[in-house]
Amino acid sequence: MIIVMCPEATKTERNMVIDKLTKLGLKVHLSEGASRTIIGVIGDKQLISELPIEAMDGVEKMVSVTADYKLVNRQFKQEDTVVNVGGVLIGGSNLVVMAGPCAVESREQILLSAEIVKKAGAHFLRGGAYKPRTSPYAFQGLEERGLEMLAEAREKTGLKIVTEVVDVETVPVVSAYADMLQIGSRNMQNFQLLKTVGKTNKPVLLKRGLSATINEWLNAAEYIMSEGNYNVVLCERGIRTYEEYTRNTLDLSAVAAVKNISHLPIIVDPSHGTGRWKLVGPMARAGIATGADGLMIEVHPNPAEALSDGKQSLTPENFMITMEEVKKIAQVMGKRLP
Amino acid sequence: MIIVMCPEATKTERNMVIDKLTKLGLKVHLSEGASRTIIGVIGDKQLISELPIEAMDGVEKMVSVTADYKLVNRQFKQEDTVVNVGGVLIGGSNLVVMAGPCAVESREQILLSAEIVKKAGAHFLRGGAYKPRTSPYAFQGLEERGLEMLAEAREKTGLKIVTEVVDVETVPVVSAYADMLQIGSRNMQNFQLLKTVGKTNKPVLLKRGLSATINEWLNAAEYIMSEGNYNVVLCERGIRTYEEYTRNTLDLSAVAAVKNISHLPIIVDPSHGTGRWKLVGPMARAGIATGADGLMIEVHPNPAEALSDGKQSLTPENFMITMEEVKKIAQVMGKRLP
Amino acid sequence: MIIVMCPEATKTERNMVIDKLTKLGLKVHLSEGASRTIIGVIGDKQLISELPIEAMDGVEKMVSVTADYKLVNRQFKQEDTVVNVGGVLIGGSNLVVMAGPCAVESREQILLSAEIVKKAGAHFLRGGAYKPRTSPYAFQGLEERGLEMLAEAREKTGLKIVTEVVDVETVPVVSAYADMLQIGSRNMQNFQLLKTVGKTNKPVLLKRGLSATINEWLNAAEYIMSEGNYNVVLCERGIRTYEEYTRNTLDLSAVAAVKNISHLPIIVDPSHGTGRWKLVGPMARAGIATGADGLMIEVHPNPAEALSDGKQSLTPENFMITMEEVKKIAQVMGKRLP
Amino acid sequence: MIIVMCPEATKTERNMVIDKLTKLGLKVHLSEGASRTIIGVIGDKQLISELPIEAMDGVEKMVSVTADYKLVNRQFKQEDTVVNVGGVLIGGSNLVVMAGPCAVESREQILLSAEIVKKAGAHFLRGGAYKPRTSPYAFQGLEERGLEMLAEAREKTGLKIVTEVVDVETVPVVSAYADMLQIGSRNMQNFQLLKTVGKTNKPVLLKRGLSATINEWLNAAEYIMSEGNYNVVLCERGIRTYEEYTRNTLDLSAVAAVKNISHLPIIVDPSHGTGRWKLVGPMARAGIATGADGLMIEVHPNPAEALSDGKQSLTPENFMITMEEVKKIAQVMGKRLP
Repeated sequence: MIIVMCPEATKTERNMVIDKLTKLGLKVHLSEGASRTIIGVIGDKQLISELPIEAMDGVEKMVSVTADYKLVNRQFKQEDTVVNVGGVLIGGSNLVVMAGPCAVESREQILLSAEIVKKAGAHFLRGGAYKPRTSPYAFQGLEERGLEMLAEAREKTGLKIVTEVVDVETVPVVSAYADMLQIGSRNMQNFQLLKTVGKTNKPVLLKRGLSATINEWLNAAEYIMSEGNYNVVLCERGIRTYEEYTRNTLDLSAVAAVKNISHLPIIVDPSHGTGRWKLVGPMARAGIATGADGLMIEVHPNPAEALSDGKQSLTPENFMITMEEVKKIAQVMGKRLP
Repeated sequence: MIIVMCPEATKTERNMVIDKLTKLGLKVHLSEGASRTIIGVIGDKQLISELPIEAMDGVEKMVSVTADYKLVNRQFKQEDTVVNVGGVLIGGSNLVVMAGPCAVESREQILLSAEIVKKAGAHFLRGGAYKPRTSPYAFQGLEERGLEMLAEAREKTGLKIVTEVVDVETVPVVSAYADMLQIGSRNMQNFQLLKTVGKTNKPVLLKRGLSATINEWLNAAEYIMSEGNYNVVLCERGIRTYEEYTRNTLDLSAVAAVKNISHLPIIVDPSHGTGRWKLVGPMARAGIATGADGLMIEVHPNPAEALSDGKQSLTPENFMITMEEVKKIAQVMGKRLP
Repeated sequence: MIIVMCPEATKTERNMVIDKLTKLGLKVHLSEGASRTIIGVIGDKQLISELPIEAMDGVEKMVSVTADYKLVNRQFKQEDTVVNVGGVLIGGSNLVVMAGPCAVESREQILLSAEIVKKAGAHFLRGGAYKPRTSPYAFQGLEERGLEMLAEAREKTGLKIVTEVVDVETVPVVSAYADMLQIGSRNMQNFQLLKTVGKTNKPVLLKRGLSATINEWLNAAEYIMSEGNYNVVLCERGIRTYEEYTRNTLDLSAVAAVKNISHLPIIVDPSHGTGRWKLVGPMARAGIATGADGLMIEVHPNPAEALSDGKQSLTPENFMITMEEVKKIAQVMGKRLP
Repeated sequence: MIIVMCPEATKTERNMVIDKLTKLGLKVHLSEGASRTIIGVIGDKQLISELPIEAMDGVEKMVSVTADYKLVNRQFKQEDTVVNVGGVLIGGSNLVVMAGPCAVESREQILLSAEIVKKAGAHFLRGGAYKPRTSPYAFQGLEERGLEMLAEAREKTGLKIVTEVVDVETVPVVSAYADMLQIGSRNMQNFQLLKTVGKTNKPVLLKRGLSATINEWLNAAEYIMSEGNYNVVLCERGIRTYEEYTRNTLDLSAVAAVKNISHLPIIVDPSHGTGRWKLVGPMARAGIATGADGLMIEVHPNPAEALSDGKQSLTPENFMITMEEVKKIAQVMGKRLP
């Protein structure tokens, strides 16, 4: 931690800061410049980050020099983490594809979807049984009946199931059916939910919050890992910006950044990321070219009949085309589809 | 709802859209322009908003013309709502001030804080017993012990207590101690939590999400009200923008907007809104001048010792000064401090 | 400047950084922590800010501790600057109001507008003769004819004239007619234009760029002042955010921030800041309560006939009401209308 | 254009709107719903877009259904535009690479840079002779001497030259030396500059503004084309968001969007887009995978000695590696390097 004093700070103010720090057992290095003094602080990171130094007289700002997450940090673990979901590997040189409709709408719809995405080469079936919706009056999902339908689709196709847990209460029931628990964007900082899934042994797919920084996102992963569950996969799904043409702005540079900072696998969701099915293919290709470990794509047997997100869902035909294109990029990137 | 067809849409595509709508019992108005066709749709709002029309061939976009919230809408209730919290009125011509430290840190700290803010004219004591924190390793609050301290402070000063519920599980225990439940920014779209507090009869303070639109915020209030709890007060606390000088960008135009759109009371939090104590006074005055019904301000007996948010907390002296300034603006605005 | 080395930086890398700095005559302070080294750099600010240190091996980041502007800094000049525009004072305890239509549309329209705003107590007539427009096919202004009409309005009412210069070429002609030159949002970093108006002796109204940080804005003012023209007034007019209800998000905390950082006067434009006439009154009041030195408000004799920005223009009646409200807030703030 | 009336609009208000429209020769279609009336307007697009209808009583909002640009629209020209810069083709199935330092710093530096990027396969040498800088005290470029050095580099290597014009005044001198004129981010809405380059016959590289929407960007291109210069190439270079890890957020979905909306070629600048050299390679690959027609990359013989942007510049070795990776992705995309 570095403390920058105001130009007009007095010697007394400076000494009060130093006193406070040394009394807590922290070591202090002083740099006196022409116009201001800088204080370097060395010692227990957690202790330092809690200090209210910025409220002390004469202090202009504090600058953090170390990340506050540990377990997600590549400094903590050099090699890429590979998460094993019932035999399907995510991370390393593997490329995973999760596909399916936004929501489970009916037995027919989800079984048909499973068949379609299986045939095109996907490894996971996605589909919401519990749906978080902006309006209380919108379709909220089929709940446990939806989970049963997903399980039936798994039995028929061998696909793994990834589906969202929207609150602490439903973690047990979703865990009973799903292979992987998804934490949605709106819940990225629902810390109680993060801790709860951290206490299970289920792999977790952690979507980035709508306006979360990369730092906040990695700290959310740290919440899960600090409870003992190391099977975390990140998912970039677009951030909120001023641009109105796309639903969100898919931040692929975050994928490259995460690959540098962390050892965790990361996949890309171009469907929510763009909100327009015509952009899904190009952004799926781009995601893989950036170095992502996989994709989550909305596919619907008939988007025009979808109960939600039809606008951004691929038809079976377009999904097939996208998969072919993605495979070619994956080959260049040295990733293989299992 | 209005449907705009692509310029190159065929007659068949147009007819398929119309067919779909009329089969659902919706009424359709057609406007054929030189370069494109526009279809107006009339009927059950909920049904329309769920339609995946944008996925149909030939459709360029859908434009919504009505808000999806009902109970929060001023069209539903013309006169201002006044929420009564154990005798303290929020809304109408009343001006409410909630003040206190970010977190309950100790018995001494919270009792002293209560005394200070009471003396300066506040009506509510604020202070977190459960703290949502970005890092799992940061101070997480004193939990139920903190609630007990808040209750003791109430007994000594007569102040009402407002404190945050961070998850569904703690709603009963927080309700047992607090006069008003706060939903924090990160939980603004924690729908299960919204529904749970909606089933209590406790007044709720609903903070705006970090990057929530006004529309999403009002829909979050609708979640609470749709469960039967009409005692909702909104709180503007700054939105996330690119500006780095301030912690957030306090969006006072949202206060003026909410006053037009909704009948619910709304207050302003200039402490989180700016993240700098020097800006708290000016933005508190501005909030009241915009027409807000009150303020939430962080005050700490000794900000330099605070366990969190010391940087944005007022000293007792500065809080006194701010209150004097606010009172003068309130008078101009026809608001009275009870 | 502070240089933070990577945890894995070698001693050689560290020494190369130090060598580079000392060879340039800069002084260096070293702080060695448990996990990383921090280097404080002292010396010529400009020289330091140009150093490409971040590209050197082993360097994680550089942290700037001093602002790069000088003349606009309150550290350079403690007391508030008061800009004198032909006898009308802006800054200090004076409150200035600039009002009028978005664009000069006709002789009748601008003369009538001048009369209306004069009667309500404004000091400046605003109105664009040259209009920067998103589309090349939109109304681009009456140009020099518009300037003549503004000058005639001045003669008739005694109001000062503020109008936009959109490029270097038109600075002479606009200067010949106007009392104050406005630099619009889109031109805030048109450095050639800034330098050109910096070489005139005309007072300048510098609007904040659509997504400019406070730091960039103050640097733009520095461009003008560094050429010798110290008569600069800043104008907050809203920044671009994700919120769609308002045209921009009026950032009043920037007003409070600028008052701390700089000695320059600053006014607020709630018309462009919100884009909705119903929000203009509340935000005008709030702006003054924040401590702004004045307002710029769009008023049109008949907004429904305006060639641009009718949606955000006040009618004469609403402008009168707003002025009455503003005066009351101004009184509380110790500001007087001349 | 669609006009949505307020629910509480009276019949008189509605008729006044209709009257205004029909008097201007526009055709009107009425849709009366249960709670509100919608008016479709058909006729001259330009005339409609200038109407101040939103200021009329009873009007809630206007919704535009057609784009306001014409010449850039794919509806105007179906096939991809290929811009020919002295024999180097940009667009269609061609992949172009522009590389070089941020600024021309010395004869040695630019000649060496040219040699390096030529050897690695680039077609254009980039390098600023005129540099727009946030602070007036920062290095502003070598100006005409810099242009001479660029021309010498062209002579020695055969590379084309692309360099920035920062104002109207320098368009002639830059045109005399460069093969392609670059309009920088800050000047994207410097309309006078757009019109000036529109009157030349030089190809133009138009960078996206820091917070420009896709719509505003295409309108800026329309300004150039409406003056007769059709040789416009767009360049996505990142937008300003709240994320602080990257300098900007590279919006690759804009590339896919532009490919749908417009026939103009578009390239990607991952150097400014990310601000970190480690992210340049991944984002260069991703840009090509999205469908971009080329890249602009900062390369410096010795980034640690660069006078600007050293942090985001590739070393010669890393540029070689990036080019090899890009070529493989280009092959998959059916693009060839000439």
